[in-house]
Parts: sequence; C-alpha cells; structure tokens
Amino acid sequence: MTYDNPENPTLYETFKPKIEKYNEALKAGILEEYKIPDDVIPTSYGVDVTKIPEKFLTKSEILITELKGVDLAAKIAKDEYTSVEVFTAYAKRATMAHQLTNCAMELFMDEGLKRAKELDEIFKSTGKTIGPLHGLPISLKEHYDYKGKITHAGYVGLIDNISTETNQCVQILYDAGAVFYIRTTEPQLLMHLCSNNNITGIARNPNNTGLTTGGSSSGEGAIAAMKGSVFGVGSDIGGSIRAPAGFCGVWGLRPTQKRIPLLPLVPSGRKVQENVVPVLGPLARSAEDLELFMKVEINSQPWKNDATLIPLPWREVPIPTPKQLKVAIVYDDGVVKPTAPILRGLEFAAKKLKEAGVKVVEWESFNVAETVKAAYNGYNADGNAGQLSLLKLSGEPILKLSHYILEEGSGYKGQTAAEYQGDTGIRDLNRTAYLKKMEELDVDFILCPVYASVAPLPETVHYWGYTNLWNILDFPNVIFPTGLKCDPLLDKPDSTYVPRNDYEKYEHALYDEDVTKFVGAPINLQLTGKRWFDEELVKASKVVAEIIEN
Amino acid sequence: MTYDNPENPTLYETFKPKIEKYNEALKAGILEEYKIPDDVIPTSYGVDVTKIPEKFLTKSEILITELKGVDLAAKIAKDEYTSVEVFTAYAKRATMAHQLTNCAMELFMDEGLKRAKELDEIFKSTGKTIGPLHGLPISLKEHYDYKGKITHAGYVGLIDNISTETNQCVQILYDAGAVFYIRTTEPQLLMHLCSNNNITGIARNPNNTGLTTGGSSSGEGAIAAMKGSVFGVGSDIGGSIRAPAGFCGVWGLRPTQKRIPLLPLVPSGRKVQENVVPVLGPLARSAEDLELFMKVEINSQPWKNDATLIPLPWREVPIPTPKQLKVAIVYDDGVVKPTAPILRGLEFAAKKLKEAGVKVVEWESFNVAETVKAAYNGYNADGNAGQLSLLKLSGEPILKLSHYILEEGSGYKGQTAAEYQGDTGIRDLNRTAYLKKMEELDVDFILCPVYASVAPLPETVHYWGYTNLWNILDFPNVIFPTGLKCDPLLDKPDSTYVPRNDYEKYEHALYDEDVTKFVGAPINLQLTGKRWFDEELVKASKVVAEIIEN
Repeated sequence: MTYDNPENPTLYETFKPKIEKYNEALKAGILEEYKIPDDVIPTSYGVDVTKIPEKFLTKSEILITELKGVDLAAKIAKDEYTSVEVFTAYAKRATMAHQLTNCAMELFMDEGLKRAKELDEIFKSTGKTIGPLHGLPISLKEHYDYKGKITHAGYVGLIDNISTETNQCVQILYDAGAVFYIRTTEPQLLMHLCSNNNITGIARNPNNTGLTTGGSSSGEGAIAAMKGSVFGVGSDIGGSIRAPAGFCGVWGLRPTQKRIPLLPLVPSGRKVQENVVPVLGPLARSAEDLELFMKVEINSQPWKNDATLIPLPWREVPIPTPKQLKVAIVYDDGVVKPTAPILRGLEFAAKKLKEAGVKVVEWESFNVAETVKAAYNGYNADGNAGQLSLLKLSGEPILKLSHYILEEGSGYKGQTAAEYQGDTGIRDLNRTAYLKKMEELDVDFILCPVYASVAPLPETVHYWGYTNLWNILDFPNVIFPTGLKCDPLLDKPDSTYVPRNDYEKYEHALYDEDVTKFVGAPINLQLTGKRWFDEELVKASKVVAEIIEN
Repeated sequence: MTYDNPENPTLYETFKPKIEKYNEALKAGILEEYKIPDDVIPTSYGVDVTKIPEKFLTKSEILITELKGVDLAAKIAKDEYTSVEVFTAYAKRATMAHQLTNCAMELFMDEGLKRAKELDEIFKSTGKTIGPLHGLPISLKEHYDYKGKITHAGYVGLIDNISTETNQCVQILYDAGAVFYIRTTEPQLLMHLCSNNNITGIARNPNNTGLTTGGSSSGEGAIAAMKGSVFGVGSDIGGSIRAPAGFCGVWGLRPTQKRIPLLPLVPSGRKVQENVVPVLGPLARSAEDLELFMKVEINSQPWKNDATLIPLPWREVPIPTPKQLKVAIVYDDGVVKPTAPILRGLEFAAKKLKEAGVKVVEWESFNVAETVKAAYNGYNADGNAGQLSLLKLSGEPILKLSHYILEEGSGYKGQTAAEYQGDTGIRDLNRTAYLKKMEELDVDFILCPVYASVAPLPETVHYWGYTNLWNILDFPNVIFPTGLKCDPLLDKPDSTYVPRNDYEKYEHALYDEDVTKFVGAPINLQLTGKRWFDEELVKASKVVAEIIEN
C-alpha cells in the first residue's frame, strides 16, 4: 500500500456504541403489527424466502402488493383502496423483507402510516389525489439526503450526520404523493456490486439467501423482489441499480444522465467527477412503473431548480410492435465471456425474439476493455482521496470489495488532469462509435448480460464491465427478468474454457465451484437504448420482456 | 519558464517558405472582378473602413448585402434574386473586407461562384430551393475541418494539414444550401481575445483599424461588420464569438453547449477538457439570422450522428413584449469595473429599457473571481501539453497574448485530476447558484458588458471574465449593438479610480492612455439567458436591442 491507511482500530472502537445504537433503532423499527414471527425466519442461508410473507398476509394485502404501481394509483384515485390499506400491506411486506434479507437501514413505519392517513384525509375532503403517486409506498436507498434523518451513505464516520435538506428527486416523489417508510442498505463506499458495510452488514438475495443481492442499491434489489415497495429509488455509477435488479430478478432503469435530479447526496463534496456520472433511477416490478417514476420526475421540470439538468421533456412514445423492434445481442463482451446460465438466457431470448418477428443480429463487441478501463479510472481519478478522508473519520475496517475497487482503475495513484482528459476523450469517441455501429447494423437496442454470471456469493464479484461500459457511454439501460432461473442441471460450467485474461479467470472461477449454490438465481438481461432516448427504451423493454417471458 | 520552450528558430526557418506560399495563395484569391483598387486602401491605421466598399458596389449589390439573411433567402426562393447575383455582391464585399482588414485566411471565390451557379440550375430545373440557406453566402472561421483544404487552426506546424472530412456543423449549412467562399482568420492557439498569428498576422477592426477585431473568431467579427457574409460561424470557449462581435459592433450568439455539432475540429486530439466546453455559433447582423443558424443546425437532428449532442429540438417561442421582459444589469463584475464608454452604454440601456416598460434590476455580482479562475484553470489543466506539442511542430515564436494565456489559470504546472474535479464542482455549484439568484430576483435575463472596455489596441486585452464566466456556467449569450460608439468627449477615463487588483489595473491602463485612439469603437452589450433556453434569449435580444437602438 502506498497510501496512508485510514484504518484506526482505536478510533473505530469509539464508534461501536454508535453502530450498536443505530442497529437498535433499526430493530425497533420492526413493529409487532407488521412482522413475521422470528421462528419462521430460516436459520441458514441458501433459501428462497420470496414466498414466506404471503403466508402472513390477507388476500387483499396480497392483491394490493401484486398490482403494478400505475394500476394501484388508479385504484386509490377511484377510492377503491385507501392509502392506509395500501400502506399497511406494504408495511408488512417491507418489514418481513427486512427480517428475511436484512435489506433495511432504517424503518419508520409510524411516519409512513401518519402520511398515509393524511393523504386519505386530503382525498376525503377534496375528492382529489395530491399527485400521480398519491398513497404509493416507495422505498429509498439510504444514500439520499433526507431532512432530519441520519444519512451516512455506508460510512461509519458519517453515522452522526443528520441531513438538513431532502434530495430533490426524493422530494419530487413526496410532492407527487409518495409514502416513505423504509431506507435501504448499501455497501461501504457505495462501490461494491454487493452489499457489505460495517454498520448493518450483508443483505441477502431473496431468491437464494446464500447469494448476494448485488449493489450498491443492495436493499432496493431485495425489497423489490420481496414486493416490499411499489418501486424504489437506486443510484448507479457502475451498475448499482442494475446489478441488484438483475441479481434479485426485478426491473431496473439507469436513465441517461442529467434528466433526473441527483443532489443533494451524501457524501457531499465540491469535487465533481464527470467522466462517469452517477444517476438516480428506479427499481421496480414492471416497465410501466419505471416509466411512472420517470414521468413524475421529469414532468416536475426539475431543471428549474438545478442548472446541471437538461430540460428534455418526457415524450409519450407508442409501444412498438415486435416487427418494429431491432435488437443486437451481445454474447460476449470480449473481456469476460458469460457463464452457462447467462448464455442460456441470451440464446433463449434470441430464439423467442426471432420467433416473434423481432430483427435480431449479433453485436460484435469492440473497444470494451479501453472504455471500461476509462470508467474504472474515473472512480479513483483523485487517488481515492475523497473516500479515504471519509473512511478516516471512523477508522473503520476496509472491506474486501472496497479494497478491490480502491485498487482498480487509477488506484491510489490517481490521475493528472491530462490523463483524466484522455479518458474523457476515449469516452466521447466511443459514445459516437457505438451510436454509429448501431446505425450501421440498423438496430435501436442492444441486449446483453447484466453481469458475466448470475448472482454470485456475497463479497466476490469483481468485473463491472457489463454495466459500467454503459455508465461511461451513458446509454440508458433497462434490466428485466427473463423468467428463467439458474438450474444446476442445465447450466453446467464449461470446464474446458481457457480464460483470456485475469478478469475472466477470476469471474469464471466464482461460478465454477459448486453450481448448486446458485439454484434459483434469476437470469435477467439488460436492454440498452440510444443516449437520451429513455422513452423508446422503456417501451421496448416491455415488449421484449413479454416476448421472452411468455 | 519551467517548461521545455517549443520555440526553435532553425526549424521555424524551414516553415517560412510554406508561410509565404500560403500567403501567396491568399493573395491570389483576391480576384480582379471583386476587388477594390489598391490605391483606395488606407495606408495608415485608425480609420473607419466600413463605408469604403459601397463606393464600388451597384445599388442592387448594396441592397442585397443590406438584407437580413432570412429575407434574402425568401427572395431567392421567390426567384427575386439568383444565387449568382447574391454571391457576386457578397464576393465583392468579402474580398474588399479582406483587403481592408486582413480578415481572411483563404479566399476561394471560384468555388463559391461554381456552387452558386449549381444552386441556380437546381432551382431552375426543380423550381425549389435545396434548403433554407439556398444561395446564402456564409463565412467560416478557418478552425473547422473542411475536406480537401488546409486546416491549421493558427498553428504554423499544421500548415500542411489537409482535412480529410468536413466539420458536421459546416456540412449541415452546406446541405441546407449555403455557399462557401471565405475562411477567416484567428490568433495563435485560438486563445487570444485578439487576432495575431504567425501565418497571416493581425486583423483590423473595420470601425477603427487601429483597434483589435477581438478574437479568436477575429476574421468573423471583421467580415460581419464589413457585410461580407450573410452570417459566419465562430467558436467560443472564453469569448471567441462574443469579443469579435462586441468589438466589431455586430451580433453574436454563444449557444448552450451540446446543441450545435462541434467536431471534427483542428487540432484534433483524444484529450477532452470539459470544465469549460467550446461551442460553435453564429456572428451575424440580426437576431433573426442568429436564429436562422440555430434552426438549420438543430432541425437537422445532428444528434443522430454525434452521441455527445443532446436531442433538444429548437422551440418556436413568441417575441416577448417589453413588459414581459425582466432583466438584471451588471454594472461591475467585482473584478474589473467597466470603463467609461461601457458604463455609458449600460446606463443608456437601463434608461431606455425602463422607459419601455421592461423590468430592470441591478445584478450584484458574486463568486465571479473563483468561477473565472476555474475557467482559466480548465484551459491549461494539462499544463499546456497539447498546445506546446503543436507549437513545437514548427518551432514558431510564441506571441505576446499566447504567453499571457499559457501562463494564466493553472499555467505550465497543470492540474491533478482532483484539482480539476474541484473546479468542476465550483462550476456546478455556481451554475445552480446563478439560476437561483435569477429566480430570486425574478429575472429571465442578465445584461452585462462584453469586456471591461471597448475594443482595445491589438495584442493588449487580458481579462476574459465578462465572457468566460458564462462559458464555464454555460449560460447562453447574445452580443448586440447599442448603436453607441466610443466618443472621446463623452467617455473620459476616471483618473481618480483606484484599481482593486492587478487585472483591473492592467485593463484600466489600456483605456487610460489616449482616448482618441478608441474613437468609433462600438459599444455592444451582452444579454445572457438561462442554460438551454437559447430560444427565449434570441427572441428577447431582438426586443432589447430594438428598444436600446431606437
């Protein structure tokens, strides 16, 4: 290590009571009226827990939590459900989700109930909803400033930090009628495609609790799969919406940058890295609810308060017919070839799409390694100075995947401005090269894996290239389920394959050991559209997913 | 100097024949049929040459070259003028402009005439124009790649560089029917608010040839004031459209970034600096023609070929009434107080606007020094590595204002990526702070000087803050004439004023010596709108200028 190690066991000792207190508050948030009995919680990992909550819900609660957000909002607006009824169903689901997967960092069900009651009173007295999300329970990654609440962004050193204002994206949802009641977990540094942190620990994948939820919007992946919110808000600079959506088997959208408000975020700093720009976006259970999020945000004209945003209105575009769809499929990015279950998913998708009349061609990957490297370089162009200063606040231990990412890219050395600008150049050249390639192939979308494999074990995943390629190119992506799951009988690893590089060697080894560990892991895929054309992408993803799933 | 001096007299000697040849070609471009007799060219400087060409033009040619581009295009489309008639009038004006101000780097009148003839033939055979610019003679800064032509961007070392493709912005104009015939001059490095280079030397301000045209779109300022093109294309990363437009007394628009195609440009490199982003934009003689440029560019949907552009369509917005206009006026940016003629212009403007019913408030400048510093830092964040490598190609002498800008900002030292990101942060915070301040004051526009004074003598101007503040904030600007000119009797310098800093001391001294040198220098002003709201800005500038001028 060439850096000044921020770990400081003595200092960290002084934070342990604070961590304990934080976890006590989290535990106290598990209210009797919403919880499942402790004795039904599985005591070992490797279990599918997605069906457990249903045993403790009424038929009506199941119905409510199975509805799409758009439909639920319509029913609330027609007085078919009260906000309190809806909230109660979701409060149960979310509480149980946390009990089963450790997906929450903060539960504030009382506040949620109070808000739902207020919304019902407004509806009763005015006959109108306050906005398109009236009464919809929505989950939030802990990452976003929330006035009056602790926001630590996964840093022990910020465990006393109380936000003085609310993130604009969150405020817009609130103003549109959302009910907040849970803030979900994230890894240390917010930079693992996994979930561990020194405050609340590892979150578990609901489909198989032996596996990671993905990250950094780790809790959002889990709660979506547990149907614990209508939709949730994640953030993504390298895959942080898409890995959890993919690994947990739900939907996620990483929109094109500068359309959705980003600030304020914790940690806040005056340094802005823009070779790869973070974006906020939804994790949900349908394409329609991804769109609902986007419409609410963009129709509020957030650029009036934030000059970094672009006034691109949300356009209403038609749902394409299968015959109008033109898709290129990535079977291999040239760096890490997908493992057996993912290849099966891609081949299955190609077959179904072709049968439905979709134009399907193969995408020959190009410039992936250099572009992905530029993305990694961007993360620590400052030589990790910002992250180290925050770790230093508490002296907390640096976790396994934190070490990985701090040493990736430009590492502790950082970059000069000239090197950084060289990566900006690589980024811009490839943005246009990818666009031109799409035009040359005459396709509007690119279908590819979310990651080289299905959800791996916690604290193992390294290679971000299937997601962070699109972050740096800033082409928007939708993650969607294929309906397929990893099956040890069908998805045997190819033991004859010779890895082309260290990334591939490492990632393939993760899948190579004992395939039965991955049973039930969802096989999701990633659909990418043209930059700024989020509208077309969301609509296309609905059709693509329906063709593949049915 | 801590850097490796790129000057190399021996090497430079080998380039001198090339420079000579280049200038011979330029001279050969002055065709007999378009020129003025050599003996009417003033032999000393300090002269207003704007009226000279009229003596050598027919009434019809004067009429053609006085029309706005939008009206001229309409007349061509109605067969009232042929493209050849229009071209001939402009070819004369442009040739004379060059003879009187040294505004050209390349004259290719034969090609222009050929193109005009072809356009006439198309119109004759189809009865239709090929696009909204059919037959309009348009000038181009030399800076832009132009297939088959030398493009050196002011670097002697690139004097053999022949472009293999044409800049997209230029191509769009061509495809819309533009006629090209002149490429105009620019300073060494493209980074002076002035005009000198080692190839074609200094350009002269048509209103007073003792003064600078401004830069770096130096020739475009001069040709616009000489009515030598319908409009021209400039580029601006610190004031390069606006200083020439302001100093020469014409109109100029620096649009919000990423709406107009930028590439390819010379010098091309893989390093991209985006703390302050360069933009292409028009210099013209009316607000309508600024808008014409924007509509042609944006309506061509350039984002389909360039993924760095944003698909923001050009919106048709109404012309505001004076009572709908809300303007804040900057009388002092807190760094360099404007000199007497500019203060007179601002006060005159305020009075006229108020009389017309416009809401006028005073803008209290804030964070200017830190924001302008961040812009300067951006220019040489790479420690001038890119520029030095290009200077080194020929060993050419580094000119006075090149030295100034190479030593400004982060100078030869350059920045680390972390420092650079700190400036990105300053940029973004102030983007939003300025937007919020506009909302707080309830204004839509900010009126301020173009520079702290009127056009100064060649090779003297240093302070870019009145223009590059808006580059880094990326708020769009229109430069327009007030109709006022510097008058030594009215605009005496304030000899009692005590400068607050070195910038102010230096710039005030430029105006302080002998005011008669500045006689006739136009007093233009700069109107700034909200980021991305170029449409509203252009329309408002028309009304504001009409109120002030009439």
